[in-house]
Amino acid sequence: MKKHNFSAGPSILAEEVLDQAASAVLNFNNSNLSVLEVSHRGDDFNHVMNTAKLLVKELLNIPQEYEVLFLQGGASLQFYMSALNYMGTHNTGGYIDTGTWSSKAIKEANKTGRSITISSSKDKNYNYIPKDNYISTPIDYLHFTSNNTIYGTQFHKFPQKYNLKLPIICDMSSDIMSREFDITNFDLIYAGAQKNIGPAGTTLVIIKKDTINFNKLPSYLNYHTHIDKGSMFNTPPVFSIYVCMLTLEWLKNKGGINNISEKNNAKANLIYQTIDNNPLFEGVVEKEDRSIMNATFKLKEEHAGLKSQFENICHESGIIGINGHRSVGGYRASMYNALEIESVDTLCQIMNYILKKS
Amino acid sequence: MKKHNFSAGPSILAEEVLDQAASAVLNFNNSNLSVLEVSHRGDDFNHVMNTAKLLVKELLNIPQEYEVLFLQGGASLQFYMSALNYMGTHNTGGYIDTGTWSSKAIKEANKTGRSITISSSKDKNYNYIPKDNYISTPIDYLHFTSNNTIYGTQFHKFPQKYNLKLPIICDMSSDIMSREFDITNFDLIYAGAQKNIGPAGTTLVIIKKDTINFNKLPSYLNYHTHIDKGSMFNTPPVFSIYVCMLTLEWLKNKGGINNISEKNNAKANLIYQTIDNNPLFEGVVEKEDRSIMNATFKLKEEHAGLKSQFENICHESGIIGINGHRSVGGYRASMYNALEIESVDTLCQIMNYILKKS
Repeated sequence: MKKHNFSAGPSILAEEVLDQAASAVLNFNNSNLSVLEVSHRGDDFNHVMNTAKLLVKELLNIPQEYEVLFLQGGASLQFYMSALNYMGTHNTGGYIDTGTWSSKAIKEANKTGRSITISSSKDKNYNYIPKDNYISTPIDYLHFTSNNTIYGTQFHKFPQKYNLKLPIICDMSSDIMSREFDITNFDLIYAGAQKNIGPAGTTLVIIKKDTINFNKLPSYLNYHTHIDKGSMFNTPPVFSIYVCMLTLEWLKNKGGINNISEKNNAKANLIYQTIDNNPLFEGVVEKEDRSIMNATFKLKEEHAGLKSQFENICHESGIIGINGHRSVGGYRASMYNALEIESVDTLCQIMNYILKKS
Repeated sequence: MKKHNFSAGPSILAEEVLDQAASAVLNFNNSNLSVLEVSHRGDDFNHVMNTAKLLVKELLNIPQEYEVLFLQGGASLQFYMSALNYMGTHNTGGYIDTGTWSSKAIKEANKTGRSITISSSKDKNYNYIPKDNYISTPIDYLHFTSNNTIYGTQFHKFPQKYNLKLPIICDMSSDIMSREFDITNFDLIYAGAQKNIGPAGTTLVIIKKDTINFNKLPSYLNYHTHIDKGSMFNTPPVFSIYVCMLTLEWLKNKGGINNISEKNNAKANLIYQTIDNNPLFEGVVEKEDRSIMNATFKLKEEHAGLKSQFENICHESGIIGINGHRSVGGYRASMYNALEIESVDTLCQIMNYILKKS
């Protein structure tokens, strides 16, 4: 039975991508070699790396003054690395705290300098996006998380570099490639691949090349090392980058970000309307800040008895990955690019069916 | 035509491993999901991670006081991370300099403290392993590279912790899993996977758990973070670790390290005998320090005219990856675990054929 994969990440990939990836594990580009055993210095992989970078630039409309990198260590290493590279005169980073991932970024910033929390939605278990981001202290940069996988909130309007006159750093791990945005608002964007870019194992970094080069930084932790070496400072995660390339090609063939964004909106509208129209369920976060990628919802307390019935039918229908994160509870439907609206529809039909039967 | 893959890394993997890997990209454990789209928190991947760790422990006979980790960022990040974690009272690491990779480790150590070069073979373009490693200055640890991929040298006798009364750190990227050794001689071993462990994308770390925990280190760069979280501090490179597990299973089924070590010795004996008995060629390094993994050799200067003939026949015979590194020149045959002796034999036959025809 086909699975409806709502996993939060690593997450669903397109079937075409998986077919091509499996075939390249056996025979890559008709070389009679597996993509797993070719040199990263060879022409075939060079072509993969360049194509993947070009596709990122093309899909996101990235101007020349930015570089695209494929690194390792996930957003978790970027939390520290971004602070290490962007702390300047004030030795202080400004952070908008919208949940677990922002908090982790703050923790790592404090390992290399100081952090100031500009605003936070911690008072309501992060169920909204703070709108008032007044900055009263001198800071070197502003950092925020564009989409909060765990809570299901998303910035629908970004803090503006033009107003703030500050470098803006954004963790876009869970919504990059899902909607159009103006890259020139940002100095640094990073994103673990395992949502909309490809499989786990690589981290996409988009960086304005004129960032200060602090020569004394450890080589791996200095963005300029990777800019200078074209993401080949060390042996790159060859297969992960290859599957990212395939996924980006798939996205381009699907009509690019504009097109996928419409599809993503349709999926989100469907599930949120179902939640709002179904008296058994309720959404977890403020409506205006709802994430297009991760819809969080619960059975209302008075209907908690329907839990196992709902979950059993989901299980029988091939739905996986909808358990909410332990810090929120309830359910979370992650609807990344590769998820078809039919999967969302299956979930919604089950929610409606439970209502009819109850 | 079957390729004889002598690449230095990423390098040849066993055919059975590639078949299983390709099949799991399409359908992992009969889950109707790809191994690329399952949650790293799910039972299936937990089993992979645990099995991979257990196989490392079993194959290398690792006692309880050590932990096995699968990280990211390659040896290149370990150069810095090992120094950061092991610099102590003396703020000084001692290094045996046996070439490019040792030099890079020294460079990164200097980013967090001081390094002292205990001995070096730089005087002869790293064509031997320094034997006199007298330590005159107080240091916190001794670091060396067990096998030097680029030059083709290898430690056949390790510096002994018992004599030195110091933590010993070893970069075993290119010869781990190729021969038996006593793990208790080491406090920290690290190795990029892409030679004998699996594909590129993950770094094996074997660490004595009682190493000091400097709490203030950046989380990703602190070994204790990964010990505490069982290599799941951040999303691990799922597929790379899965293929490592398959490769380690393959190695166990082949009779383990003892058995593969005999095969590796046979391959090395074959090529070195061929080099020594063939007046057209010469080895690059001191005989007593020759690497079992990477054999470096050249056409003697007076026979340089045979270069294109030799290379053409190699190419026609499906041999790939034997060009020497630019800092050494000539040829390098990397003979990792998965390379069959038939491939070495093919190369040797060509060398003999050239002699007969010349």
